[in-house]
Amino acid sequence: MSKIGVHSFVWSAGSSKDELERTLVRSQDLGFNLVEFSYLDPQQVDVNWLSSRLRELGLEVAVSMGLPPEGDITSDDRSINANGEAILDRAVALVRDLGGSKLAGILSSAHGKQERPLTRRAWDTSVGTLSKVAARAKAAGVSLNLEIVNRFESNMLNTAAQGMAYIADTGASNVYLHLDTFHMNIEEADVGLAIRNAADKIGYVHIGESHRGYLGTGNIDFTTIFDALVAIGWNDYVTFESFSTTIVDKDLSLKTAIWRNLWNDNVALAKHARQFIELGLETARLKAELVKDAHLPLV
Amino acid sequence: MSKIGVHSFVWSAGSSKDELERTLVRSQDLGFNLVEFSYLDPQQVDVNWLSSRLRELGLEVAVSMGLPPEGDITSDDRSINANGEAILDRAVALVRDLGGSKLAGILSSAHGKQERPLTRRAWDTSVGTLSKVAARAKAAGVSLNLEIVNRFESNMLNTAAQGMAYIADTGASNVYLHLDTFHMNIEEADVGLAIRNAADKIGYVHIGESHRGYLGTGNIDFTTIFDALVAIGWNDYVTFESFSTTIVDKDLSLKTAIWRNLWNDNVALAKHARQFIELGLETARLKAELVKDAHLPLV
Amino acid sequence: MSKIGVHSFVWSAGSSKDELERTLVRSQDLGFNLVEFSYLDPQQVDVNWLSSRLRELGLEVAVSMGLPPEGDITSDDRSINANGEAILDRAVALVRDLGGSKLAGILSSAHGKQERPLTRRAWDTSVGTLSKVAARAKAAGVSLNLEIVNRFESNMLNTAAQGMAYIADTGASNVYLHLDTFHMNIEEADVGLAIRNAADKIGYVHIGESHRGYLGTGNIDFTTIFDALVAIGWNDYVTFESFSTTIVDKDLSLKTAIWRNLWNDNVALAKHARQFIELGLETARLKAELVKDAHLPLV
Amino acid sequence: MSKIGVHSFVWSAGSSKDELERTLVRSQDLGFNLVEFSYLDPQQVDVNWLSSRLRELGLEVAVSMGLPPEGDITSDDRSINANGEAILDRAVALVRDLGGSKLAGILSSAHGKQERPLTRRAWDTSVGTLSKVAARAKAAGVSLNLEIVNRFESNMLNTAAQGMAYIADTGASNVYLHLDTFHMNIEEADVGLAIRNAADKIGYVHIGESHRGYLGTGNIDFTTIFDALVAIGWNDYVTFESFSTTIVDKDLSLKTAIWRNLWNDNVALAKHARQFIELGLETARLKAELVKDAHLPLV
Repeated sequence: MSKIGVHSFVWSAGSSKDELERTLVRSQDLGFNLVEFSYLDPQQVDVNWLSSRLRELGLEVAVSMGLPPEGDITSDDRSINANGEAILDRAVALVRDLGGSKLAGILSSAHGKQERPLTRRAWDTSVGTLSKVAARAKAAGVSLNLEIVNRFESNMLNTAAQGMAYIADTGASNVYLHLDTFHMNIEEADVGLAIRNAADKIGYVHIGESHRGYLGTGNIDFTTIFDALVAIGWNDYVTFESFSTTIVDKDLSLKTAIWRNLWNDNVALAKHARQFIELGLETARLKAELVKDAHLPLV
Repeated sequence: MSKIGVHSFVWSAGSSKDELERTLVRSQDLGFNLVEFSYLDPQQVDVNWLSSRLRELGLEVAVSMGLPPEGDITSDDRSINANGEAILDRAVALVRDLGGSKLAGILSSAHGKQERPLTRRAWDTSVGTLSKVAARAKAAGVSLNLEIVNRFESNMLNTAAQGMAYIADTGASNVYLHLDTFHMNIEEADVGLAIRNAADKIGYVHIGESHRGYLGTGNIDFTTIFDALVAIGWNDYVTFESFSTTIVDKDLSLKTAIWRNLWNDNVALAKHARQFIELGLETARLKAELVKDAHLPLV
Repeated sequence: MSKIGVHSFVWSAGSSKDELERTLVRSQDLGFNLVEFSYLDPQQVDVNWLSSRLRELGLEVAVSMGLPPEGDITSDDRSINANGEAILDRAVALVRDLGGSKLAGILSSAHGKQERPLTRRAWDTSVGTLSKVAARAKAAGVSLNLEIVNRFESNMLNTAAQGMAYIADTGASNVYLHLDTFHMNIEEADVGLAIRNAADKIGYVHIGESHRGYLGTGNIDFTTIFDALVAIGWNDYVTFESFSTTIVDKDLSLKTAIWRNLWNDNVALAKHARQFIELGLETARLKAELVKDAHLPLV
Repeated sequence: MSKIGVHSFVWSAGSSKDELERTLVRSQDLGFNLVEFSYLDPQQVDVNWLSSRLRELGLEVAVSMGLPPEGDITSDDRSINANGEAILDRAVALVRDLGGSKLAGILSSAHGKQERPLTRRAWDTSVGTLSKVAARAKAAGVSLNLEIVNRFESNMLNTAAQGMAYIADTGASNVYLHLDTFHMNIEEADVGLAIRNAADKIGYVHIGESHRGYLGTGNIDFTTIFDALVAIGWNDYVTFESFSTTIVDKDLSLKTAIWRNLWNDNVALAKHARQFIELGLETARLKAELVKDAHLPLV
């Protein structure tokens, strides 16, 4: 009953037709209902074909990305800022053309380790640009889901509370939070409470372990997370994400500092993740019902 | 800032003037703000004196009790039921005469291991009698706090959800739940969620460990409990309860099956408990504030 | 890879041939490898047939029981004590005749709420009798697994440490602990540590939730338990136990105080339990391997 | 009874005599037994005076540091490597001159976000250089404690298992692990198990929260950590570390990406931390004793 997605990098960092086809088929085979792609260049990928295949296989799609330094929309430099805006617009178009509705990831600033704190001016600059993108995205039926990431990957939105302040500043109705348990484990004071507090502004959820490997083999208390998702009535996608040195996307692997080989067999990994999430959510639902049951005497 | 109470049986199961005086003084010395007494017989205890000493020492008071089999208000036997009603009325009077406002404990049925499931008729009988007591208690400025206990100590109210159904049936405005973490650990599906769901009907809280000994040396996740209390804005008393074979109240020790010596030094125990609860609540409050802080850039 | 059993009362409290057959078939269907029966009377059950069916279906078997008050081997009364000894001998014979090797449950005292603390003399009396039974059981290829239960079901062996002291006193090599997570949640100071400390004396394990219902819908930290089982290299059976008012064994349901209906659909319950235990153990094993991996640079 | 230290950056990032004096006095006032300093330049700090003040105040001392890129001992560049070796030698001398015995921190590679995976050759180069430093440190009575840090601060030793492999390669007897709960929360599969597995090679321990702020207001399960420390018989220092934008060391604040103001009042913070650690360790010790207590009947 749960809607469970998988990030394509579990299968491959490549984007040839063969690789994409294999990614779709494996995702479907293992029971996932959505595939998340990192931004795909329409110059290199046949978007129409991919969109058709997704529909044929009954899969939904999401796209995620992180702005590059040369497209950082917190920047005062007009050409950098305009470049970022154009990148976001292209990503929105890709989501629409793939038949999706969610753009996710680090959309409000550059992705990467920063060398100085963010300024109020940079915040406002980012809000200004993103608001314009959001208006156009709305017309395209696409929501912008701002990924809340750890301090080493951005100096801007590290907590859900920061993200909610940013969303309020945009005044847009199609800007949401993209929460990710890996990042929350580093930054949030209380992951369950952060989810409850942000309930109506959550648009997308990544489920990843503290070290990015097999779910349940790290430090994240997934019981608390599944409980919180059930508590807020979440019935949208949760997407599994995991990184190992087995599958390398040069840019992303460096930005996310993937140095260790946490798994080789991605089929075993994904099967385990699917079962872990499904069972976790089912159990959380049973628990939430049980705790409310008045168990009156029957006779 | 927290209001923390202590059950008198941490100090003594006796009720001589000397014992009561020592109980009050030690409680105050160690920083507790309330003392909970098991029902004291006004024939044997100088209630006026005790009330004065409480006031002089700046201590608040609560009274707890469990109905005996011969005063079980679920009973169809009129004399048993009337006896239970009279016992409850006397306890309400004691609370009032001591200057308190809370009667707590197992008020809706007998305390002890039952030999058959509760019937719907017994439930209704209990509701009928307790409602009458509640009306008189209200006039006396006393609330009735129904302790939710484990299956081995009652077959009636084992969960907060059951207690809320019972309270709704009474229609009374001065009947609340008396939650106890020892019992919740056995019966509730989710202790934190049970507290959140029952928020506006909680009247009194016992903090006890899963084996009844030192807090933190058992299986209860007190972090979750303190978090839930902060989440519902609880600013009333939490009272520490612990049992060891060191201090024996014949009746209660048997009903609660205290076979092991979990501590000898009750001063060390109470000091630890006071610090554990205070630090736990303080930390939960800091966490709840932190998770909401938007941490906007300052410059 | 895990060896997972199921208590027959998940399926039925009856012992007609039809009921037993259905219990075996359902257990096998759902992937369990062992069925645990409460003591079955050979006068009423065709033990040869049951033994054959177990073998045909590739199922292993365990038998559990609790001594009745009239067979309490802590008793000074010779006839009561001798009766208990005979009951134990018959149960050992049943295990052997069913082709099993484990007798489990409350073997050292009566099962039920006691009204006074245990004495040293009662302890010694029990050790004396059980040692004799153990010697005969050894000859029959049967181990005695002493269930450690909560304070409301016995005043004798409430913790693994108590059980180990008892085992040491018997001097027997075929007496082990039967640990049960439901009881441990009430009595042990640290469930994981209790398992680690008792490692070489654990003979049998019950997996049950804090309220006796669906695994994961209560207060037990099963992650800690699966981690501890992996840490001690446990590769013997863990058996799922759950009680609801749906299936009533008159004697056991009263002794264990089953007042609430925690489930109706036992197939859904058992399927969930099987998956919960299997996934939990698999995840614990992956974690224990990962934490030791030196992850040296490959090139 | 616990030995509890505090990192000087809780008080000040400065190293004037006044600032150092205040750091020592406050640390002592709040009941800490050790002060950890980031490397202090003997050209700028009066080491003799500081050493005397430490002795006078009854405080122990530790020194921590992270190698700079220009002193990275994984480097093939001889001048860089030699520079790193000299830096380490100077730090060892500082420890000795302050009357301490522990050098801690990122000693085997540069501190900071790396842009490529570590090679086997770089590992071996580092081992070679550090072994030489270790031999000289041994003569000076100083141990080298290799801090295990998260992936964003080094690409080399991210887990205790990696650190143990490195230590084995050095063959030195005075090289240990410096574990830090903040980093372990990101990298270890199981923090408690990592501590148990590394028991005899742990030389120094940092206690820090997942977001670097108040203990207990983040995602780290400190109960598990205190339990593991008690389980391995740890009776050496645990040192509290916390960072906020309130106190900025330019270099360290950027490398550790401190963007948020998690506290202003460092006295309240340190008082809370002292109490949190002391109570946590005391409770873990009580629990470990309780779980072993056989509680034999007394009479």
